[in-house]
Amino acid sequence: MIIVMRAGARQEQVDHVCERVREMGLQDHPIVGTDLTVVAVIGDENKVDGGVIEQLPGVDRVMRVMAKYKMAALAAKDGRRSEIEIAPGVSFGGTLVPVIAGPCSVESAEHILACAQAVKASGAHALRGGAFKPRTNPYAFQGHGEEGLKMLAAAREATGLPIVTEVLTPSEVGLVSEYADCLQIGTRNAQNFKLLQACGQQPKPVLYKRGMAMTIEEYLQAAEYILAAGNPNVILCERGIRTFEDHTRNTLSLSAVPELHQRTHLPVVIDPSHGTGHARLVPDMARAAMAAGADGLAIEMHPDPEHAMTDGAQSITPEALTDLIVSLARVAAAVDRTCGAEREVV
Amino acid sequence: MIIVMRAGARQEQVDHVCERVREMGLQDHPIVGTDLTVVAVIGDENKVDGGVIEQLPGVDRVMRVMAKYKMAALAAKDGRRSEIEIAPGVSFGGTLVPVIAGPCSVESAEHILACAQAVKASGAHALRGGAFKPRTNPYAFQGHGEEGLKMLAAAREATGLPIVTEVLTPSEVGLVSEYADCLQIGTRNAQNFKLLQACGQQPKPVLYKRGMAMTIEEYLQAAEYILAAGNPNVILCERGIRTFEDHTRNTLSLSAVPELHQRTHLPVVIDPSHGTGHARLVPDMARAAMAAGADGLAIEMHPDPEHAMTDGAQSITPEALTDLIVSLARVAAAVDRTCGAEREVV
Amino acid sequence: MIIVMRAGARQEQVDHVCERVREMGLQDHPIVGTDLTVVAVIGDENKVDGGVIEQLPGVDRVMRVMAKYKMAALAAKDGRRSEIEIAPGVSFGGTLVPVIAGPCSVESAEHILACAQAVKASGAHALRGGAFKPRTNPYAFQGHGEEGLKMLAAAREATGLPIVTEVLTPSEVGLVSEYADCLQIGTRNAQNFKLLQACGQQPKPVLYKRGMAMTIEEYLQAAEYILAAGNPNVILCERGIRTFEDHTRNTLSLSAVPELHQRTHLPVVIDPSHGTGHARLVPDMARAAMAAGADGLAIEMHPDPEHAMTDGAQSITPEALTDLIVSLARVAAAVDRTCGAEREVV
Amino acid sequence: MIIVMRAGARQEQVDHVCERVREMGLQDHPIVGTDLTVVAVIGDENKVDGGVIEQLPGVDRVMRVMAKYKMAALAAKDGRRSEIEIAPGVSFGGTLVPVIAGPCSVESAEHILACAQAVKASGAHALRGGAFKPRTNPYAFQGHGEEGLKMLAAAREATGLPIVTEVLTPSEVGLVSEYADCLQIGTRNAQNFKLLQACGQQPKPVLYKRGMAMTIEEYLQAAEYILAAGNPNVILCERGIRTFEDHTRNTLSLSAVPELHQRTHLPVVIDPSHGTGHARLVPDMARAAMAAGADGLAIEMHPDPEHAMTDGAQSITPEALTDLIVSLARVAAAVDRTCGAEREVV
Repeated sequence: MIIVMRAGARQEQVDHVCERVREMGLQDHPIVGTDLTVVAVIGDENKVDGGVIEQLPGVDRVMRVMAKYKMAALAAKDGRRSEIEIAPGVSFGGTLVPVIAGPCSVESAEHILACAQAVKASGAHALRGGAFKPRTNPYAFQGHGEEGLKMLAAAREATGLPIVTEVLTPSEVGLVSEYADCLQIGTRNAQNFKLLQACGQQPKPVLYKRGMAMTIEEYLQAAEYILAAGNPNVILCERGIRTFEDHTRNTLSLSAVPELHQRTHLPVVIDPSHGTGHARLVPDMARAAMAAGADGLAIEMHPDPEHAMTDGAQSITPEALTDLIVSLARVAAAVDRTCGAEREVV
Repeated sequence: MIIVMRAGARQEQVDHVCERVREMGLQDHPIVGTDLTVVAVIGDENKVDGGVIEQLPGVDRVMRVMAKYKMAALAAKDGRRSEIEIAPGVSFGGTLVPVIAGPCSVESAEHILACAQAVKASGAHALRGGAFKPRTNPYAFQGHGEEGLKMLAAAREATGLPIVTEVLTPSEVGLVSEYADCLQIGTRNAQNFKLLQACGQQPKPVLYKRGMAMTIEEYLQAAEYILAAGNPNVILCERGIRTFEDHTRNTLSLSAVPELHQRTHLPVVIDPSHGTGHARLVPDMARAAMAAGADGLAIEMHPDPEHAMTDGAQSITPEALTDLIVSLARVAAAVDRTCGAEREVV
Repeated sequence: MIIVMRAGARQEQVDHVCERVREMGLQDHPIVGTDLTVVAVIGDENKVDGGVIEQLPGVDRVMRVMAKYKMAALAAKDGRRSEIEIAPGVSFGGTLVPVIAGPCSVESAEHILACAQAVKASGAHALRGGAFKPRTNPYAFQGHGEEGLKMLAAAREATGLPIVTEVLTPSEVGLVSEYADCLQIGTRNAQNFKLLQACGQQPKPVLYKRGMAMTIEEYLQAAEYILAAGNPNVILCERGIRTFEDHTRNTLSLSAVPELHQRTHLPVVIDPSHGTGHARLVPDMARAAMAAGADGLAIEMHPDPEHAMTDGAQSITPEALTDLIVSLARVAAAVDRTCGAEREVV
Repeated sequence: MIIVMRAGARQEQVDHVCERVREMGLQDHPIVGTDLTVVAVIGDENKVDGGVIEQLPGVDRVMRVMAKYKMAALAAKDGRRSEIEIAPGVSFGGTLVPVIAGPCSVESAEHILACAQAVKASGAHALRGGAFKPRTNPYAFQGHGEEGLKMLAAAREATGLPIVTEVLTPSEVGLVSEYADCLQIGTRNAQNFKLLQACGQQPKPVLYKRGMAMTIEEYLQAAEYILAAGNPNVILCERGIRTFEDHTRNTLSLSAVPELHQRTHLPVVIDPSHGTGHARLVPDMARAAMAAGADGLAIEMHPDPEHAMTDGAQSITPEALTDLIVSLARVAAAVDRTCGAEREVV
């Protein structure tokens, strides 16, 4: 931690700061510059509330130098990337870049089965679908709950695809964990720390979406909740951040991919569907994500977007998904990855 | 709902859109303009997923015209403002503008008692303090839990101040509701819909903070969750939004006060402590909030900010709070409100 | 400047960094911490491109500790505020909080004269009006140019009000400077450095609006262009920043007022008209600005907003302005300022 | 234009709105819905200031339906993309995706020549370099001016690479136009409309960067200034927008590529250097841009980033550029484009 004193701070103010630092069990190291003095603090800065020091007389500001996450840090694995398997042959962080596809909501048993078959046929690797839906509008469809989970399980049975589905609240984690191959934590719950802890205490991998207003630093700190609770299998997912842009529902920040790769060993998935909100932008952004080095893709698909119960605007059709995976496989090859199952890449 | 067709959309595309509208049980009304055609939709647009229509061939975009919230709307009370009482004499939405003050966290029984006495002495009207703390960093202090609630209750006993405290998860709502006079839902849980519903099913008023990335429209829709679950006593709270600005922790958007007053009957509180993140900015922003028409203020105070366990940087001292309330009373008088208890206003 | 090395950086990397620092004529001061090493740099960091050092092997990041502006800094005037006069009795930064009011555009000689008379009658202190208009839409009305300046001068003649008007390009600075009492630089030109320099080389005060995407630090650095070019009379103006919020045209960031007051000696004006974009929000936000400590207000007024050529949505009527100034005077008194001319404040 | 009346607006208010619409020479078309009334306006809505109507009694809001740009619209070219040539064989908008590379600033004649040779050797297609530099800090290096232009011309002479260089102010447009093959308008001047017009009145193509706080709609409207002034050769360039993210200097919004392609016929270049601000993120984001469908790339390269006079942090080395172009060519092939000169693509 570096404490920057104001230009013109008095010696006694510097002394008071140094005293407080020592009182916290850390070591102070003042450096007198030409214009101002800074106090370098040696020791574990996670023990200190920098904000408190910022209020001391004569202090201009406090700058942290250590990351607040440890288990998520790349250094925790000596620079090696984690590879996280959600089902045999479907792992994130390796050469294969799996595609998770499916509808926003599980609408009915027939519907999710048809979706699963389309996903399977397209060459994608996992099925997504919501049984519990967080809806902005309280009067909108909220999902089929446990019935929806059963429908997902039946679709898995029929196709062999692993299923990824969202959990909304700690008390439902056990239930969802029984059915799902991978739990999803959505953007609106990205700082629901009780939910993160609960997901950290069950055995299934977690697809953990970035909050739409979280910095990368905050995101990794929050991921640490899951890791610290005992679950090492966290898959990160960038799905768009909130900005002034209005041509998309969110701004998909693809630089999160290389940035996260330089900071953490956890794999990074991109969701171009929520990240743009418009089906017409999904294919280009999916290809861009692949080229940026993403370790997986999450794509909304619906057999009949016109009649989807939720998120029709951002769902692509089964045909579009099939075409997309062909083109993704080509881009994957260009960056030394693979995508698509048993397919010839031209 | 207004459906805007692309310039050059074909007649059959317009017809298809109209058909889909009728299929949804609504009435279509196409208008042919000089450059393009729009289809006005008559009926309850909350039944329709506009995004789906946006994907139909020839459609440029869909614009909603109805608000998605009903119970929160000003019209639901024929334009009259709600006045919400959290304890006898402490109500939000009337002439008095109550100040909720106190530390970020309940640190110990003695600590919260001392805080309560300082709050009382300053002329503020309610005591805040967190027993359950949502912390960005998993290794940071998470609050004393039920013990903290008991300490708060003892402080109420001693001073007569009503207590406002945060609840983090649905399963703890019952517990917090037993102790608190008013439950608080924090910004990180602003779209934790399960929590909103649980708070809607208990009898105490709710101080519901705006999510740091929520639009006003989304905020009111989410408030509707609490109302729709049966609790009419929702107090809104603007506490800063996330923007590119870096001199503050968040950007306090005071225009939310008049905007909300023009849309909803619910009272609006301002939190200048989280809204800026710096004690040095709190007094000016508290006065600005008062002049903007806020119905209450929530201010972090700590007897010894240098040694606060959490949020010391944004906590003001008891002395500063006392001075602030004197000046707030003057500003209140200038806008025909009152603030402070038994005080002479110059 | 503080150079933070990555955890695990090798000694030779630290040495290389130190060498580069010395090569730049600065003094290096490495500090070995428990987890990582930082190198404090002693000397004028404005000589160094921190970004370059950030690229050196083993460097994590570089943190500046000195402000990049000197003449604008509060310290440059030993903590005293500047008071900037645009006409006898109309100065910004003192006890009086002047109101600059008027239409967005000068529409005709009669129109601006009527505006000036309404502004005068309301108790406001200066007349604003655009002769050169920067319009987002190339096909929109662009202002009357020099003719407009003459109309403004005639309105000044008739009412005694000083005039504030915008300049768009360096080659027109001389012309505008001849007519205006105060030049305005708009938000879209806030980083048009050639224009800033040209305004710094003429004698009239400058009302310099913050760019809608500039941080406070960048804003003060850019203000330094005007100061450094020789003009000490810079009046800052917050007029809203660009955020995700959509209920207003911009988000008026009132915390800029106390923040700027803590960093610079220059006065700070608030423009609630552009800052919200809606006349219905202007009065509350003007009062909030006053309570926040603003040194002036800039308000759009139009005798007939329904027929304004530009910005009708955010213009208030003469009657509303008159009422507003009465209420502003009351808020001003509550914060030990004054507003309004020759008026009894209740 | 659609005028949405408030729920409960009175008939006389609707009538007044309709009257005002007719007074503006447009046709009104009121539609009475179940909850509220909307008035569709038929005719050229560019003639109307929607904001004015928004202030009429009983009006809730006004929604535009027509784009404000015409010459830039895809429809203006019947859906065909423009191909804009800056030198023989170097055109944007065709199958080839040219790379513009070079240093931020022209530092000396030798320096820019060495850069040009490195750019040539890497397989890139054009040389960039600033002779006039807009610097946030008034005390920073501002470029060599006309001398710099001459150095660029000499580098072109030696290598055959066309040159792209920035112009800052209308009075220098003629000068820069004499030397450059393509003028660049930077992000800070993106709404400097006088400069846009001046660039529209000279014959060279213009690389026009998006303002860091402009929406896509505003960007295209502003591009229209250049087109309307007579220059059809506008190349758009996304270079990052300002958001709350702090791991990058800006947030590179790649969805701008497909979005712009769906709205305009103008080619779209991506600048991953300014778009991230960190050399370590440039290669991944350049590849992502290629996969997203970009029509060109602008990349900062410096032979010795450690000693660059400006923007060293985001400049890659000649070796990195050479490697990048090899990988870009592979990604280009995967999306049916080409990149790099006379190179075998594996």
